[in-house]
Amino acid sequence: MPGQLLARGVCRHLASHGFAVIEEFVPDRGLRVDVMGLGPKGELWVVECKSSRADFTSDAKWDGYLDWCDRFFWAVDEGFPTELLPQGSGLIIADGYDAEILRMGPETKLAPARRKKTIQKFATHAARRLQALRDPGVRVSWA
Amino acid sequence: MPGQLLARGVCRHLASHGFAVIEEFVPDRGLRVDVMGLGPKGELWVVECKSSRADFTSDAKWDGYLDWCDRFFWAVDEGFPTELLPQGSGLIIADGYDAEILRMGPETKLAPARRKKTIQKFATHAARRLQALRDPGVRVSWA
Repeated sequence: MPGQLLARGVCRHLASHGFAVIEEFVPDRGLRVDVMGLGPKGELWVVECKSSRADFTSDAKWDGYLDWCDRFFWAVDEGFPTELLPQGSGLIIADGYDAEILRMGPETKLAPARRKKTIQKFATHAARRLQALRDPGVRVSWA
Repeated sequence: MPGQLLARGVCRHLASHGFAVIEEFVPDRGLRVDVMGLGPKGELWVVECKSSRADFTSDAKWDGYLDWCDRFFWAVDEGFPTELLPQGSGLIIADGYDAEILRMGPETKLAPARRKKTIQKFATHAARRLQALRDPGVRVSWA
């Protein structure tokens, strides 16, 4: 199943737990996470969606994502060979309609300054995308 | 000119200055601001859009908005009798396509805890609206 569909199911599931979510979030130069979730207490969760073995093995930079979240998860469909995934990471089984958390990612709390900066970036990103959808006449600066 | 059109022009203008913006933001129970802008340094600006004298005089709670922003502005169209507006507030002249800041609102900095809470609420609000637009199948909790 394509990663974007998995991401949709993941986003629905996280939303049902009170998280706000955005897709394809860039926490830092050169990094793009599939799903970033912001929880009611300011928790930041990253979910990487992997559609296939090849999709997983070609991603060399996933451990860089760990520095930008309190918990990290892989999301895959039920046919994915989960033994490939690093032991101990969070695991979500998803389809295009919903998802289920099978294993929580271990918690490694962000430093307060990074959390603050990342939540502000999340806010900016979400608002700019929303404005671009609502008002096609706007010129949004993505800097 | 209807307030929603003024808000669109205001949002375009603020976006051109690097602000992220959302409309009809609820910073606290019972309060709804027309435009909330989040600046590159975490500044929070509130803009109230007034379409007419009646629209202005019927708004009894605008001074409550001052507690939720670093700067406050009125936005009106060029035909509005600006002498009605409180002296010293920020003033923006807008139409549906753009806007111009005629007078900056005085700065009264938010306390750090309130800024943090408000930016998180801004992030959540923007992401939920974006998700609702992108995925009509989602059940978003607005709690």
